[in-house]
Amino acid sequence: MKNFTEHIGLFADHYEFTMAQGYFLDGRKDCPSCFDYFFRKNPFDSGYTVFSGLYDLLEMLQQFKYNQESLGHLKKNGFDSSFLDYLEGFTFKGNIVAPKEGEIVFSNEPLIRVEGNIIETQLVESLLLNIINFQSLIATKASRVRQSAGDRIVIDFGLRRAQGLAAIHASKAAVIGGFDATSNEYASLAFGIKASGTQAHSWIQSYPDELTAFRKYAKAYPKNCVFLVDTYDTLNSGIPNTIIAAKEMEQAGEKLFAIRLDSGDLAYLSKKTRKKLDDAGLQYVKIFVSNQLNEYLIKSLNEQCAPIDGFGVGTELITGQPDAALDGVYKLSMVDNKPSFKLSENLEKATLPGAKKIFRFMNDEGKFYADAILLNEEDNVDKIYHPSQSLKSADVHGMEKEELMQNAMEDGEIKIENKSVQEISEYRKYRLTLLPEEHKRFENPHIYKVGISKKLSDMKNRLIEELLVR
Amino acid sequence: MKNFTEHIGLFADHYEFTMAQGYFLDGRKDCPSCFDYFFRKNPFDSGYTVFSGLYDLLEMLQQFKYNQESLGHLKKNGFDSSFLDYLEGFTFKGNIVAPKEGEIVFSNEPLIRVEGNIIETQLVESLLLNIINFQSLIATKASRVRQSAGDRIVIDFGLRRAQGLAAIHASKAAVIGGFDATSNEYASLAFGIKASGTQAHSWIQSYPDELTAFRKYAKAYPKNCVFLVDTYDTLNSGIPNTIIAAKEMEQAGEKLFAIRLDSGDLAYLSKKTRKKLDDAGLQYVKIFVSNQLNEYLIKSLNEQCAPIDGFGVGTELITGQPDAALDGVYKLSMVDNKPSFKLSENLEKATLPGAKKIFRFMNDEGKFYADAILLNEEDNVDKIYHPSQSLKSADVHGMEKEELMQNAMEDGEIKIENKSVQEISEYRKYRLTLLPEEHKRFENPHIYKVGISKKLSDMKNRLIEELLVR
Repeated sequence: MKNFTEHIGLFADHYEFTMAQGYFLDGRKDCPSCFDYFFRKNPFDSGYTVFSGLYDLLEMLQQFKYNQESLGHLKKNGFDSSFLDYLEGFTFKGNIVAPKEGEIVFSNEPLIRVEGNIIETQLVESLLLNIINFQSLIATKASRVRQSAGDRIVIDFGLRRAQGLAAIHASKAAVIGGFDATSNEYASLAFGIKASGTQAHSWIQSYPDELTAFRKYAKAYPKNCVFLVDTYDTLNSGIPNTIIAAKEMEQAGEKLFAIRLDSGDLAYLSKKTRKKLDDAGLQYVKIFVSNQLNEYLIKSLNEQCAPIDGFGVGTELITGQPDAALDGVYKLSMVDNKPSFKLSENLEKATLPGAKKIFRFMNDEGKFYADAILLNEEDNVDKIYHPSQSLKSADVHGMEKEELMQNAMEDGEIKIENKSVQEISEYRKYRLTLLPEEHKRFENPHIYKVGISKKLSDMKNRLIEELLVR
Repeated sequence: MKNFTEHIGLFADHYEFTMAQGYFLDGRKDCPSCFDYFFRKNPFDSGYTVFSGLYDLLEMLQQFKYNQESLGHLKKNGFDSSFLDYLEGFTFKGNIVAPKEGEIVFSNEPLIRVEGNIIETQLVESLLLNIINFQSLIATKASRVRQSAGDRIVIDFGLRRAQGLAAIHASKAAVIGGFDATSNEYASLAFGIKASGTQAHSWIQSYPDELTAFRKYAKAYPKNCVFLVDTYDTLNSGIPNTIIAAKEMEQAGEKLFAIRLDSGDLAYLSKKTRKKLDDAGLQYVKIFVSNQLNEYLIKSLNEQCAPIDGFGVGTELITGQPDAALDGVYKLSMVDNKPSFKLSENLEKATLPGAKKIFRFMNDEGKFYADAILLNEEDNVDKIYHPSQSLKSADVHGMEKEELMQNAMEDGEIKIENKSVQEISEYRKYRLTLLPEEHKRFENPHIYKVGISKKLSDMKNRLIEELLVR
């Protein structure tokens, strides 16, 4: 396998290079530009999205370069030597303005502002979209699973079903979204995440019988010992053998930590298992479950009062099912110091021109009330307007507010701290307490208000008119 | 970003290490074992799956090692120093038996046999599942898109919506599945894939008007010039400006290659566009389309006789929507030279014991008729049996057959050639011609016969009985 980190500058769509060379050959390499990142729809019909991936993006932007092998590849693919000479010394020297990682954000907000010359801002498009779209998708999924699980343990079991190397950042995003630990040992190393896991069915099968397998495991791991009980027959073999082995552990002064159910009807089996364990005086043994779980199934298990202490969540978490992608886009908003926008067949999908920022307004309980998109030069707004239906407005006069975006990178230098995933997760958790409940429910969540300022609205309408007249 | 290639040995679930250490401490490190890879369901309700990812897996197995940083991490995570000493010198020295990459395969076939000691065969579980599940998923999706597109051009546009670094191998699998090219410049370098792409809306926006943008692009790229025509208004601006610019190209002795439609009703717009281009004498200008395409939408466009010459396919291809994961598993089939299997609550889901191989039988037209799973020591079969309903059988007596699995790795050494993605794709294409049409249709494809030999069936039934009696 090639060393990816040496070729991050090639983690880009081919058209970024054809455009960049086009600008270069047209003498526009220093033309100032500004792009916005935004997505059009919260994933999973969620009422919110967890913004994630920022620091990874910044680090990769600093490694976004071209070595001789990369340049040789581009030459082979037909690029001009004058342009390749330019790329040889290329580093991203632009600015990135974005929310804090772990922030609660919403659709149609220009969340990341990328400023720089037209070549650097264009070349990084695919990387930015790839990283932010994916990590925000997974962090949001994880946050929803965390909502369902309450304060019980949730562990990422997704590595084997992850989309190849996606696992690296997915396990990280899972913890940002509220997971306690991961099975992914590499992510544990790379991001300082707690690793978790005990045994597979193969362990049980590898011994002549289940009880021997349990005893062997208890001997090797008297602390945090978990038995997987469904290899042969959960209630008639797994649990009776568990009770024998757990009692033997008691005699040795140890305590079995938990059992794990990995198949069958988890509500039914967890209740039966709890009863059998309790009847045997093993009230302290916890019940963990896994097998195709998601936020809805965990909610359903709760509603059935299933006595479950922890959940292992794999495929649906790690691939962000059922959406599998966040639809984030990257649109030019300023070029040559003039506002720019894309009209589209559908006026509602017209992008917002100009360099913009976001204010978040708080209601009188100190909770999130609405977000306002303003032109960068504006100081405040009293009223916000629906982005495409100018007659709809909301009053935010005198409300407490905060600026949502910060300078994350200036002239290619990272300006924010590299927070631990645990700190980012704590921030997400805190910010989620400020989001009113009605935006957090799974069924038809209340749509959070995101409006634009009068000045921005006027600018957009003026540009549309100019275009339509032309 | 950490250099992943230095830590591939950690690309494993934590429980692989707890089990491996358990075996090590129990004195079983040299215990011979055999695992099977198989999946339970073809993805996308497809009648077949394209086997993919094998050579990447083999290469990663050779890099599956532990450097000091990896060992330090495992130490911090609580592993014993005697086990870590063992891991310090660890390399995978086992055997891998598998179909050729690009092979047409089916659910419930033990496709990969991993033989070695119990530690090495266990440690590589997550890596194997991760790589094979994902690449086979994407290659299958790509193959379905290729089926719909016939011999028209299909290009992978997925990088921006790919699941982070998943893009690296997804673009490769797309070409194995039949795509002509990718937008992903890194995959182009890493796997020698043709890179493709021209311009985004930002190019058009960055110039004062659309016509100027087209002229500038034509000047920079007179060959393979493509105009993106939907930035403002496809039929009233994009196409009229295209015609002006294309006529100017003609005067300069050049020919516009194509236009690209990226929004709106692609059937309607492609027809209107074709007519306008033809009326202007631009019959040679091709029409490319993109925007949330998949195999069904392409089929529908065909059915509407939309005059389209090429398709850019992004999100649904690159994330393997709507499935997003292939459900492959890795199950112990031999341990200590004895057959092993997992029963499960559902007898139908019991795994197949023993070291096995697969024969593919051909009907009298030389097309795929049925696959037979045999014990490794068997030479031939005359009859195959349904894996769980022993009364259902099919006669394969005297039929031509081939052995599906080859020795891909022996004692840790790669034994197969590193074929180019184009060669693998050609193999897939050829093999797909041997699969009868009824298995290839999208709606309720005919289920391909996969049976087991009498000996294997008897072994399985005997083991089940032994267990149930116990």
